[in-house]
Amino acid sequence: MSSPKPILLYTWKTPNGHKVQVFLEELKAAYGTDVIDYDVEFIDISKNIQKEDWFIKLNPNGRIPVIVDRKRDNFVVFETGAILGYLQQYYDTENKFGFDVTKEPNYFSETVQWIFFAHGGVGPMQGQAAHFNKFAPEQIPYAQKRFTAEVKRLYGVLDIRLAGRDWLVGPGRGKYSIADINAVTWVRIHAFTGVETLEEWPNVKAWVARANERPALQAGVSLEPKA
Amino acid sequence: MSSPKPILLYTWKTPNGHKVQVFLEELKAAYGTDVIDYDVEFIDISKNIQKEDWFIKLNPNGRIPVIVDRKRDNFVVFETGAILGYLQQYYDTENKFGFDVTKEPNYFSETVQWIFFAHGGVGPMQGQAAHFNKFAPEQIPYAQKRFTAEVKRLYGVLDIRLAGRDWLVGPGRGKYSIADINAVTWVRIHAFTGVETLEEWPNVKAWVARANERPALQAGVSLEPKA
Repeated sequence: MSSPKPILLYTWKTPNGHKVQVFLEELKAAYGTDVIDYDVEFIDISKNIQKEDWFIKLNPNGRIPVIVDRKRDNFVVFETGAILGYLQQYYDTENKFGFDVTKEPNYFSETVQWIFFAHGGVGPMQGQAAHFNKFAPEQIPYAQKRFTAEVKRLYGVLDIRLAGRDWLVGPGRGKYSIADINAVTWVRIHAFTGVETLEEWPNVKAWVARANERPALQAGVSLEPKA
Repeated sequence: MSSPKPILLYTWKTPNGHKVQVFLEELKAAYGTDVIDYDVEFIDISKNIQKEDWFIKLNPNGRIPVIVDRKRDNFVVFETGAILGYLQQYYDTENKFGFDVTKEPNYFSETVQWIFFAHGGVGPMQGQAAHFNKFAPEQIPYAQKRFTAEVKRLYGVLDIRLAGRDWLVGPGRGKYSIADINAVTWVRIHAFTGVETLEEWPNVKAWVARANERPALQAGVSLEPKA
C-alpha cells in the first residue's frame, strides 16, 4: 500500500485555484511524484460548499484554494500567495521556482513584492471587472469603466517590468518563478474579465504566451472534477 | 556627524502609509534609534507625485509606500505586505513582531496567510467602499451595497479568528505582530469607509481598541508633513 500523497488541495476552476494547481504540477514535473504529489477535492463554489461549517474551520474566509499538508501534521494553509510561498519553502528544495530567503534575499524580496502587487491589484480588480462587465444584474457604466481602466493600468505596470525580461524576477531576463505563476494565471484570462486583447502591452502578451507554452501550466489549468 | 538613518520611507497619510509608519515606530520603540530609524519623504498623492518618472523608477505601480534600505545598498521595496516582511526579516532581529521562518514555521506561515487575507480583501474592498460611499461623482446604490457588504463580511472573518484571542497569530491569545499592524491600520478607519460602528463584531472592536492604545501605533498614524 502506498502512503497518502503529501498535499490535499481543495480547489475549483478559477484563476485562484489555477495558481496552486499550476505550481503543484510544476513541482511534480520538476521533482517527480515520489517527492511531491497531491489529491484534489473540488469545492463547487456555485453551490456554496466553501461556506459550510467544515470548510470555514479550514479557512474562515470561506474561499478556495486551501491546502492540507499531510507530511506536516495536516497543517492548513489558505490564501494563494501564502500557499505558493509555503510550497516553495517546503517542496521546492532546489529553488527551481523561487529564491532562497537568506542566500538570494533581494530576489526573494522581489518575488514577494510582485506576488503582493498581483494579490492586491490584478486579482481583485480583474474580479470586479468581470463582475461588472459580465455578471452584475444591472449595467453600471461608471463601474465598468472604473474597473476595466484599473485592470489596463495594472497590465501597463507589468509591461514596464517585463521590458527586456522573460520573467518577473531574477537575474538577466529572469527566472520563471511563483511570481509569474501567481500573476499570469489571472492575466491569461483577460478576455473573460472584459479586456479583449493584450496588443497594448506587447511584453505582457509575450509573457503570457511563454507561460501558456509550459506543459505543467496547461495541466494545472485543465484539471476538471470527474463527471 | 552621524550616519544617515537606515531607512528612507516614501509615504502619505493613508492606511497603506500608516502600516509601514506604525511598524517603523514599533521597531524604534523596541530596539532604539541607534538600531533602526528612518527619514520620511511625504509624497502628496493629491498632486500625483507618485506618478512622476523618478517615482515610477522606484515603484512601477506608482503607489506609496516605498522604502529604500540605505544599509543594504539602497535596496528598494514596494507593496506594504512585502515591506513589513522585509523589515521584520532584517530589523526585527529578536522576532518581537513576528516569527522565525525556520524555528516557528507554522506561526510564520499563519502570519503570511493573514497578511495576504487583508492585502487582497480588507484593503482593496475598504478602498472601493470608501470610493463609492464617499468620493464617486455619482451615487450608485448597487456598488455601495456590494462593497459595504463585502467589508462587513471580511470583518466577520476577522471576528471568527479573534474569538478567544488578543492578536491574529501566535500561541495562546496570540502575539502582536505584523499581521495585526497590516490589518488594523485599515480596520481602525472603518467609519471613513462607510461602516459606522464595529458593534456587530465585538472581537474586532476589542482588537482595534487594544491596538489603538499602543503609543507606537499612535505615533505612526499621526505623522504629518511639515507645514
